[in-house]
Amino acid sequence: MNRRQLFYAGLIASFALSALAHYLHWNQMFLFAVSAISVVFVAGFLGQATESVAHYAGQRLGGFLNATFGNAAELIIAIFLVKAGSFETVKASLTGSIIGNLLLVLGLSIFLGGLKFKEQRYNVQLANHNSTLMILAIVALFIPATFVSAEHFTFRKDQILSITVAIILIVSYLLWLVFSMITHKDMLSDMEDKAEAQAGEHHEEPLWTLKRSVLYLVLATVMVAFVSEWLVGTLHSVSARFGLSELFIGAFVVAIVGNAAEHSAAIMLAMKNKIGAAVEIAVGSSLQIALFVAPVLVLISGFFGPTMDIVFTPIELAAIAVSVFIAKAVASDGRTNWYEGFLLIMVYIILGFAFFLV
Amino acid sequence: MNRRQLFYAGLIASFALSALAHYLHWNQMFLFAVSAISVVFVAGFLGQATESVAHYAGQRLGGFLNATFGNAAELIIAIFLVKAGSFETVKASLTGSIIGNLLLVLGLSIFLGGLKFKEQRYNVQLANHNSTLMILAIVALFIPATFVSAEHFTFRKDQILSITVAIILIVSYLLWLVFSMITHKDMLSDMEDKAEAQAGEHHEEPLWTLKRSVLYLVLATVMVAFVSEWLVGTLHSVSARFGLSELFIGAFVVAIVGNAAEHSAAIMLAMKNKIGAAVEIAVGSSLQIALFVAPVLVLISGFFGPTMDIVFTPIELAAIAVSVFIAKAVASDGRTNWYEGFLLIMVYIILGFAFFLV
Amino acid sequence: MNRRQLFYAGLIASFALSALAHYLHWNQMFLFAVSAISVVFVAGFLGQATESVAHYAGQRLGGFLNATFGNAAELIIAIFLVKAGSFETVKASLTGSIIGNLLLVLGLSIFLGGLKFKEQRYNVQLANHNSTLMILAIVALFIPATFVSAEHFTFRKDQILSITVAIILIVSYLLWLVFSMITHKDMLSDMEDKAEAQAGEHHEEPLWTLKRSVLYLVLATVMVAFVSEWLVGTLHSVSARFGLSELFIGAFVVAIVGNAAEHSAAIMLAMKNKIGAAVEIAVGSSLQIALFVAPVLVLISGFFGPTMDIVFTPIELAAIAVSVFIAKAVASDGRTNWYEGFLLIMVYIILGFAFFLV
Repeated sequence: MNRRQLFYAGLIASFALSALAHYLHWNQMFLFAVSAISVVFVAGFLGQATESVAHYAGQRLGGFLNATFGNAAELIIAIFLVKAGSFETVKASLTGSIIGNLLLVLGLSIFLGGLKFKEQRYNVQLANHNSTLMILAIVALFIPATFVSAEHFTFRKDQILSITVAIILIVSYLLWLVFSMITHKDMLSDMEDKAEAQAGEHHEEPLWTLKRSVLYLVLATVMVAFVSEWLVGTLHSVSARFGLSELFIGAFVVAIVGNAAEHSAAIMLAMKNKIGAAVEIAVGSSLQIALFVAPVLVLISGFFGPTMDIVFTPIELAAIAVSVFIAKAVASDGRTNWYEGFLLIMVYIILGFAFFLV
Repeated sequence: MNRRQLFYAGLIASFALSALAHYLHWNQMFLFAVSAISVVFVAGFLGQATESVAHYAGQRLGGFLNATFGNAAELIIAIFLVKAGSFETVKASLTGSIIGNLLLVLGLSIFLGGLKFKEQRYNVQLANHNSTLMILAIVALFIPATFVSAEHFTFRKDQILSITVAIILIVSYLLWLVFSMITHKDMLSDMEDKAEAQAGEHHEEPLWTLKRSVLYLVLATVMVAFVSEWLVGTLHSVSARFGLSELFIGAFVVAIVGNAAEHSAAIMLAMKNKIGAAVEIAVGSSLQIALFVAPVLVLISGFFGPTMDIVFTPIELAAIAVSVFIAKAVASDGRTNWYEGFLLIMVYIILGFAFFLV
Repeated sequence: MNRRQLFYAGLIASFALSALAHYLHWNQMFLFAVSAISVVFVAGFLGQATESVAHYAGQRLGGFLNATFGNAAELIIAIFLVKAGSFETVKASLTGSIIGNLLLVLGLSIFLGGLKFKEQRYNVQLANHNSTLMILAIVALFIPATFVSAEHFTFRKDQILSITVAIILIVSYLLWLVFSMITHKDMLSDMEDKAEAQAGEHHEEPLWTLKRSVLYLVLATVMVAFVSEWLVGTLHSVSARFGLSELFIGAFVVAIVGNAAEHSAAIMLAMKNKIGAAVEIAVGSSLQIALFVAPVLVLISGFFGPTMDIVFTPIELAAIAVSVFIAKAVASDGRTNWYEGFLLIMVYIILGFAFFLV
């Protein structure tokens, strides 16, 4: 059995065992352990599939696909939470997902990529647009929070403002896709793509055909969604046993698990010097959560009962703002090195520790 | 009658009708409608005059003249409000004017220019200096607000701090004019200017001679001032009839009407691919309000009675800060496209909606 | 006696007189006056020694040495204050030192250098990294303050968070030295260095040999430490006599005196068109205080009694944040001119005036 065959054996075995443990209601601690191992395998599988698709589609579209498939799992989990009325947990996990992508995924990618390559570069124009969109996300989340607290809004006004902001964010996100994928596609394409195309550097053969890559991408996403849900289901018992708060579980444990796909894919790409695609996954995934997943959840919540407002707590807002500003400072020059990645990880640790103490 | 003659007929007719309606005390709703139509014509006239002057003076000086003549009207209106002691309304309209210029005027210019041209460029150095000045304005407005609220300043200390900050801002603005018009003029001149000069591209004949252009510029400004005042005079009745708050009227309706000149001129220039001049008008006008008009009003208020302090409310400060940061993010790379303009307009709509609900 | 001999005579005479006045307990006002004069001389001496070392070591290492020797004095004074339990005074003087370096030292250097040279340039990459580190410092100071105030932390949690943040900051600072002095040294070296090296422009002979320069650097630092302490010792009497608050004394008077070395060296270098070294001193010194001196004081305080927390007051945080953002806006393009220096000084005056009124 060679290395690849060993990987697939582990993938199938850990997934099957987790499924059995979940549906036959085995011991929660065992399910936690086995599904955590399974997450590592399915995330690795998703990473391979994404990379193979990216071979055909280019780094940017590949990154977008990865971010979208990665967030699909989170959206599904969040809809169940919204239906159950756990608005605070939903917001905590959205916050955790944004800061996890901007600090941990981006930080690890830049750090590990930077240990291997002295300096990695990517398209500055894209970095600028991503920064601007991150600022929009902050602004859009900041305005309702300021007005609601400063002016003692009624519950009804709060909801109207939340729905309006949600619609504007969704429209902005859809037009961003039009802009970046259609009208200004060429301007934002990666320099590496161009450089590779010119140098005819595509020596490395993709793992699979395009059709099979897409199929595996979908399959891997579905597996991630299932395993994530099983793992999340055990967290209540685990947190009770280890004495962790719900906020910390939502913002850090759930978010890290839910972003396993982004983690593995982004780091794998960064270590192959495709830092452009890694940044696209990490930043694109945060943007998608702030500009699309969060507002969609606000609108969906209306179907189940009272609308969830878009007002985050001060410490959630502070954590998001801090992450955006440090990520913007690091990413805005289109060059990265190990120290920049290290700084992002440090800020993540400080935030994680502060949330842990709350 | 050709198209131009029709325009002048409309200009004169609507202005004359508004004057009659105002001085003969006709129905307020009629005056509102007719003066609103007149504003469109006189703003268009002012735009033509500015563009003609810019033909002779270069884009930057032309932009400065337009911003100054546009703000002259606002300053006059604000002095009347200060004399009447309506400090809160003055600050609301200053806030509205800053965010209106940074978000709506700049946003519409970039958006409409961007629909016509794939990418528009302007001098990055100038963009950097403008950003730095906008940060100064935020800092200068933010410090008094922080200290006054954090330390329970006495009324007297509040006034001393406000007067000091006002004097520093005015000195900074005057030295900025020295810097940008005298000592470092060449460094900040637009690339388009240079490119045009090199290519000898000045095919398009200016509308009028320099002398006549300047005369029309002054005439158009005076007409804008008059019509604006008549329109503002009707707003109290209009707001009562439609149930709008004073804050919303001050920050949005007055500001949009008062900035009609900047709007028309900036958009017209952007659509002729002179985005440098459009940015100069929009950003320059906000800077002039924050660094010159607001502090001058603080100093002038001392002649009429108790000095107006320079302390804005938290939501006004939040709105200004948000506008500066998003405009800085959009403008700092010296390149614009339709999506960046769209984002600015979206932030304006979110802010407008939040102010409307207060 | 030529000009240089006159300088050394003044240096020795003022230092000796201050020592006598201090140890023989002469009149406090006399000691204040004579030690203030002495500070000017020893700071000038330190500036010469730094410049001479920088001749041998390059602008960046020279700047780092100057910042470190300058801050050594401050660290010693602060340790005595921590031992006495004056935590608030320590934080006020750390705040004052950060804003003094970022606004006054940097502002005067850029302003005076800009009056002599139309535009001064330095390495943009270094500017970007310095900005990112300044953002890290803000973030690290901002997170404890937000969490402590938002969540009513217990005293114990406050201390644990402070110690964790302190350790992370120290590790970040040490790795920054590894990054900037070892792994990416070449990337951050100054363009002027390269240009000079290429042009063989080192016409100007250094004052002393390398050995003697280092000896004088250490000697000058020790003299600065002594004179600073004697001067600081008189401030209590002086403040009582002139009616100034402890906060103002700590944040402005102590900070200006304590940074005399950075002032004189940075300004001297800026006026010789070595703006890269001047920025390195001013920004590097602030970074060292935020990322190294402050956390070391937190850890040291634990040996004397209850640990000093890292939570600054809202107005201190606001002052630091404001300074970082305006300095970042000014320094981020790697070009400076007199107006940018002027703006920094204006913000310093506004902050100083606000602190004076508290």
